[in-house]
Amino acid sequence: MKEKISQEIIVNHLKNYGFVFQNSEIYGGLANAWDFGPLGAIIKNLLKNIWINYFVTSTKNMFLIDTNIILNSSVWDASGHINNFSDPLIDCKKCKNRFRADKLIGEFTNEKITEQTDISILEKIINNNKIKCPNCKNIDWTNIRKFNLMFETSIGVVDNNKNIVYLRPETAQGIFINFKNIQRTTRAKIPFGVAQIGKSFRNEITPSNFIFRTREFEQMEIEHFVEESQENMFFDYYINKIQKFLFDVLKLKKENISIENYSKDEIAHYSKKTIDFFYDFPHGKSELWGLANRGSYDLMQHESFSKKDMHYLDSNNNKFIPSVIEPSVGLERLLYAILIDAYDEEQVNNETRVVMRLDEKLAPYKIAVLPLTNKLEDFASKIYQSILNKGVSCTYDTSGSIGKRYRRQDAIGTPYCLTVDFDSQKDMSVTIRNRDSMEQVRVNIKDINLLNLSKLFK
Amino acid sequence: MKEKISQEIIVNHLKNYGFVFQNSEIYGGLANAWDFGPLGAIIKNLLKNIWINYFVTSTKNMFLIDTNIILNSSVWDASGHINNFSDPLIDCKKCKNRFRADKLIGEFTNEKITEQTDISILEKIINNNKIKCPNCKNIDWTNIRKFNLMFETSIGVVDNNKNIVYLRPETAQGIFINFKNIQRTTRAKIPFGVAQIGKSFRNEITPSNFIFRTREFEQMEIEHFVEESQENMFFDYYINKIQKFLFDVLKLKKENISIENYSKDEIAHYSKKTIDFFYDFPHGKSELWGLANRGSYDLMQHESFSKKDMHYLDSNNNKFIPSVIEPSVGLERLLYAILIDAYDEEQVNNETRVVMRLDEKLAPYKIAVLPLTNKLEDFASKIYQSILNKGVSCTYDTSGSIGKRYRRQDAIGTPYCLTVDFDSQKDMSVTIRNRDSMEQVRVNIKDINLLNLSKLFK
Repeated sequence: MKEKISQEIIVNHLKNYGFVFQNSEIYGGLANAWDFGPLGAIIKNLLKNIWINYFVTSTKNMFLIDTNIILNSSVWDASGHINNFSDPLIDCKKCKNRFRADKLIGEFTNEKITEQTDISILEKIINNNKIKCPNCKNIDWTNIRKFNLMFETSIGVVDNNKNIVYLRPETAQGIFINFKNIQRTTRAKIPFGVAQIGKSFRNEITPSNFIFRTREFEQMEIEHFVEESQENMFFDYYINKIQKFLFDVLKLKKENISIENYSKDEIAHYSKKTIDFFYDFPHGKSELWGLANRGSYDLMQHESFSKKDMHYLDSNNNKFIPSVIEPSVGLERLLYAILIDAYDEEQVNNETRVVMRLDEKLAPYKIAVLPLTNKLEDFASKIYQSILNKGVSCTYDTSGSIGKRYRRQDAIGTPYCLTVDFDSQKDMSVTIRNRDSMEQVRVNIKDINLLNLSKLFK
Repeated sequence: MKEKISQEIIVNHLKNYGFVFQNSEIYGGLANAWDFGPLGAIIKNLLKNIWINYFVTSTKNMFLIDTNIILNSSVWDASGHINNFSDPLIDCKKCKNRFRADKLIGEFTNEKITEQTDISILEKIINNNKIKCPNCKNIDWTNIRKFNLMFETSIGVVDNNKNIVYLRPETAQGIFINFKNIQRTTRAKIPFGVAQIGKSFRNEITPSNFIFRTREFEQMEIEHFVEESQENMFFDYYINKIQKFLFDVLKLKKENISIENYSKDEIAHYSKKTIDFFYDFPHGKSELWGLANRGSYDLMQHESFSKKDMHYLDSNNNKFIPSVIEPSVGLERLLYAILIDAYDEEQVNNETRVVMRLDEKLAPYKIAVLPLTNKLEDFASKIYQSILNKGVSCTYDTSGSIGKRYRRQDAIGTPYCLTVDFDSQKDMSVTIRNRDSMEQVRVNIKDINLLNLSKLFK
């Protein structure tokens, strides 16, 4: 088995070839924030559409919605985020550094704490274990304060508390508050699911590990509304459905995925059951995709806070608040897993060839058109334009030796190269090269089926 | 010619059928903010992909990128947004209402002012014209203050001024600050274009007219980097390209689109030339799509503020800062225009039939499967599932008379209905109905080509 790729190698590769850029780089950046360059942006968009096609378009009783990032603040009162979505922070009085108390305890003690552990208990543990400041090694701590992770801003022109709004920390609540609107307008019968893709924001104390954890990120979430008796059935349905998506659609390597089960005291208070699909990232095995049984917690909270009826009336005249099964994945995290999975190095003629072995449907460019010399540009650029006209994502490269250009296309994951040579205009034939096998075949242009180039190599 | 549709009629239609919902409706809403329901969300996503395919995938030397909403604040210093992106506000001391001074002047005088007119001059005009408070009719104004339209928030856990960041008011700057990264990694030669779709935020004093002007909105922008001598050529290129997109791709009615030219003192200070494509919305003819020649203003500003070289070196060793041609459209605005254009009412058998005459590629569902009675559900749902399996967007409806179900599909723009009747299982045939002509044909299931249903009606 090959050695695991380091974070440094993959990050450098992605920055050098235009998959990802440091956000605001010319101004010294913004802490752990990243932009997606030409290649990353195309894959991100492909991935969104593949997710929508798989989970929504080709699945019955599934609906897509698109709600705002800024909602009425009452939403976050009801969801519990205003009171509970916070980290316990502690300062070293000597060196003024700030830390997450729960992380200090996890790092320097064997004490067992959870999300729900009281602040006073955390303070006792830090005192009893004589935890030193990791920076200046003194023991002189402030009390612990709760720091809310929601970004706060104000809306409208009048300055008062009524105008405080938050950037959503999850897309899920936009679905819950629209439950009745969706059900009324679609006349859908339970069970049905509602999907959403969109940005969420969390003012994390320690964003880290490249695009794995950032303050601004994109979620792809489904809330599947079911009867209470159907909770386990749909939980299992999604375990299976997510696995098929990861392995059969995205073609991720099975050995890099594992499932983490959590006990009741490790999971969020609103959840009845949670599992995570882990991916073996360069920084370690970490959450890729969460699956939670949120029960009827959220709809009950919104009924209680909004005084609006959230019950569903079924065809047997049973009235109930539905339960919710929630598969939720971070888009950037999934993209990162795909890019790590695809990265490969191999020795060819005593040189290292870097190949992104991206599945064809995830490759930024399906094909590259390469004229052997500049004199062939007229003819080659016509082929390039005819491919673009068909709506097939295509790139064109004229600079450097053909060998170097092949390597460049390998490095960005282009599955096929089309090389125009001195005979091409005479015999109307070109050479198609396969990225993975490096095999080359010469074919007549009229025999090229852009939607099925793989058959040339079978 | 038909009468113009009123805003009330179109908004009610879109809310009733699940195109658009009031944001946070169960909590009394959020001023003039809207969510996209199941139908609106699908069209929005289709529209993004159609735009990407047309302007990026099928056009040479075009790149897509995807930058963050939150950038280093220096970006907005350089762009001028921190100093200049503001509205002049004035308060009535008597009734405490707040107004935009420029709007008051526009409404109650014939004085000519521009974006650049000094605050002191605006105050003089209001005094000289004895403009009364529109609310309480008194004349007792405060001085005018500049109110910045950027949403402000703070990032990280330490509270100080260094952590103030803004939600981007335009996607364009994310492209400018990445100009060198994009050029370096793609090795593109000027002229080339960079496209981006993403949310922008403006804390407008008076958001209005449904989804036409909202504080949170999505932009689809291109910055095309060209030589100074190519500015006019590319400006004209985009006039033509946008028109083709509106008329040939989206099939908008020509009579609803007009072009507005602006004189130099009407346009933003960074622009050398600006035109707007106007659409005839229910509230009046208003900006749909802007096209600006921003010259080299933005890249020069970023070079000056970041001290990073923004020059481009061409193959003749000429070094220059490129000019930029910018076509920019608001996604929700374009969607609104499409929905207005598609809305139609006609009299059929003394009843009003509402039809959304959406182009097939913009219809949320391509086809609806309708079993004539509940007894036919088994067979019909198999057909429904087989269509979904092909990845074709499809809906299924069993409730109400077949006539009512046809009307419902007309109202949401489904181009074809497939009706399963009592003979269907025997002769393997179904009835396909055309939304626009209401024509019906009975066909064998195996003869149905889902990708070309229109040929059944020729």
